[in-house]
Amino acid sequence: MTNWTLAQRAARMNPSVIREILKVTERPGIISLAGGLPAPQTFPIEAFADAAAQVLGRDGAAALQYAASEGYAPLRQAVADSLPWEVHPDQVLITTGSQQALDLVAKVLIDEGSRVLVETPTYLGALQAFAPMQPRIEAVASDEDGIDADDLAAKVGSGADKARFLYVLPNFQNPTGRTMTEARRQQLVERAAQLGLPLLEDNPYGDLWFDQPPPAPLSARNPEGCIYMGSFSKVLAPGLRLGFVVAPAHIYPKLLQAKQAADLHTPSFNQRLVAEVLQHGFLERHVPTIRQLYQRQCQAMLAALEQHLAPLGVSWSRPAGGMFLWLRLPAGLDALELLPRAVQRGVAFVPGAAFYAEDADARTLRLSFVTASEEQIGTAIAALADAIRSGCA
Amino acid sequence: MTNWTLAQRAARMNPSVIREILKVTERPGIISLAGGLPAPQTFPIEAFADAAAQVLGRDGAAALQYAASEGYAPLRQAVADSLPWEVHPDQVLITTGSQQALDLVAKVLIDEGSRVLVETPTYLGALQAFAPMQPRIEAVASDEDGIDADDLAAKVGSGADKARFLYVLPNFQNPTGRTMTEARRQQLVERAAQLGLPLLEDNPYGDLWFDQPPPAPLSARNPEGCIYMGSFSKVLAPGLRLGFVVAPAHIYPKLLQAKQAADLHTPSFNQRLVAEVLQHGFLERHVPTIRQLYQRQCQAMLAALEQHLAPLGVSWSRPAGGMFLWLRLPAGLDALELLPRAVQRGVAFVPGAAFYAEDADARTLRLSFVTASEEQIGTAIAALADAIRSGCA
Repeated sequence: MTNWTLAQRAARMNPSVIREILKVTERPGIISLAGGLPAPQTFPIEAFADAAAQVLGRDGAAALQYAASEGYAPLRQAVADSLPWEVHPDQVLITTGSQQALDLVAKVLIDEGSRVLVETPTYLGALQAFAPMQPRIEAVASDEDGIDADDLAAKVGSGADKARFLYVLPNFQNPTGRTMTEARRQQLVERAAQLGLPLLEDNPYGDLWFDQPPPAPLSARNPEGCIYMGSFSKVLAPGLRLGFVVAPAHIYPKLLQAKQAADLHTPSFNQRLVAEVLQHGFLERHVPTIRQLYQRQCQAMLAALEQHLAPLGVSWSRPAGGMFLWLRLPAGLDALELLPRAVQRGVAFVPGAAFYAEDADARTLRLSFVTASEEQIGTAIAALADAIRSGCA
Repeated sequence: MTNWTLAQRAARMNPSVIREILKVTERPGIISLAGGLPAPQTFPIEAFADAAAQVLGRDGAAALQYAASEGYAPLRQAVADSLPWEVHPDQVLITTGSQQALDLVAKVLIDEGSRVLVETPTYLGALQAFAPMQPRIEAVASDEDGIDADDLAAKVGSGADKARFLYVLPNFQNPTGRTMTEARRQQLVERAAQLGLPLLEDNPYGDLWFDQPPPAPLSARNPEGCIYMGSFSKVLAPGLRLGFVVAPAHIYPKLLQAKQAADLHTPSFNQRLVAEVLQHGFLERHVPTIRQLYQRQCQAMLAALEQHLAPLGVSWSRPAGGMFLWLRLPAGLDALELLPRAVQRGVAFVPGAAFYAEDADARTLRLSFVTASEEQIGTAIAALADAIRSGCA
């Protein structure tokens, strides 16, 4: 008998709640508000088809060969040029989705037992990426404007126990949809600098604003104190798995070495495809169409919530962009218990508990307004109301 | 001042020797025998162009959307069908290159300070993938037929100190080019089962045989005692970053959870591209052309070595397939010291020392025979001879 011994960290790895729910919701007849799947009609399929023909016809051998771990130079340049502060392409590392950036940062900055701070609640995928490095993850108090800087100061710690970083998603946060205000950003950056605390800024949704762009990133205010992560998943397509990380010069080489060990490099073909599509200001024409669609869908969901859930004592966030809305059920209800009743009635969501590093609020849940159509959203919210009523009976 | 504290493992991450050398050898005029870059003329560019048009035209939205962490079902089925023992598609996890499989296995099976066994010498990328999980890596004595089973038994250890696994690359090994014999495979599998020691079998080159296929994989002899890794990088193209891992049913879920946390899933578009190309027996027609090319290039290198290096007292391996040849310099010479003199003369290689987990043999070096043309190989080996002579003077 072979004696398989699992690493201790394996006990802290768990199936993704969201991905397990997504499997259930692949059943026909279920309207899923659970996954964060971008609306497929926004994928520029023809642009990718043209780019694939171009790239393979012109540079096929290079596109299919091993490539530099840092990423494809023109894509690194395009990323640097797109950011609203001075970034040199040498600071840009192309990653296999921005999820990989979380994995690389965790490897480089987290020791077993070291402390890491996150928002309340926070992105589940970040908790999962950090977990294998076995940190103690602690939640900093947060409200609808973002992180509470005083609670941050109280929790940062000192000496060997000092937190390695604060992970923060300031724009249209996953899961709450909230956006950190200008005042709160400035306060956070200044306080973090005083505390000597690195910030890990995640910005996958920043381009998906409705009426006005969000305030400038934290990293633009103190580049040497921040690692910044971005993604092409929401403005182009997630199936190519293309993200990036921007890091201070003395951190970058370690992220690069972790990248080499993780998968050698991000697929060369995909990098060249996206660099090809990005030419001639493609995103300036394309992204506004995504914004308009998502804003309409968000408005449809808000209207349906007002109609069906306000009478039931449910409250919700009013996002200014992004993909998600955050609900809170009335006292006595539990979102995890609600889920099977909702699925029975043809609608799926993600219970909020999974997004808390500690002290989960069992009454919360996350809805995506980008995958289902406006009509489906109305049907789904009515079904959700029905499920809630069934639990109160 | 921000207080960046690096994880202890970061001190064990180092720039890839090979990738650093590759950068130098991008200079014009250098013939590189260093990197393991497949010959680009073997890349089926047209087949990929056709497949890209097909996949985007037919299933564009799905190919560009988020997808299951396990991988694309038809590709998992194709992998299972291609293996010479009974494998269920549920046991196949598609990875972002087989380098990622090493990262995932390391996360799931290695604790800080736990022991891991490797061949002497072994694949450098495996050492780099294991390092972040902070194992103690120990080398098992190996000769040109493979692992020494008695030394394995002596080193396996017991209790908490028992080795977590033996990592082994039985076919046309990177770096030595050697192939484990049938007798040695059977002996290794039996001894490992007696010892209760898991085997991690890496097989990126197995299809690249010259005159006859290598003996059956270790995993075919004891599937429950082995994790098996394979790759599309050498039979199709490395730039798509597509590999896979086959694991026993009780290990698979943990690898899957590590995969979710690492990059959510391998690019859906790339998986569908390769599944499309694989249809209608493509590899049965395509791979023989790669075998023939690499065999000719290997023969050209062996002839050049005989002509130029035999008189200098250099010895080398005679691979039966794969991409690499292993040289040993005469006493008194050091391959790392030789490298700058060789580069000066227009040829690059990888010094062998990087491939040893311990007790490096400084006289060894690795040559790839697949990237340079037959003519370039002759020129390069003559230049290498010149560099060696310059060191003896």
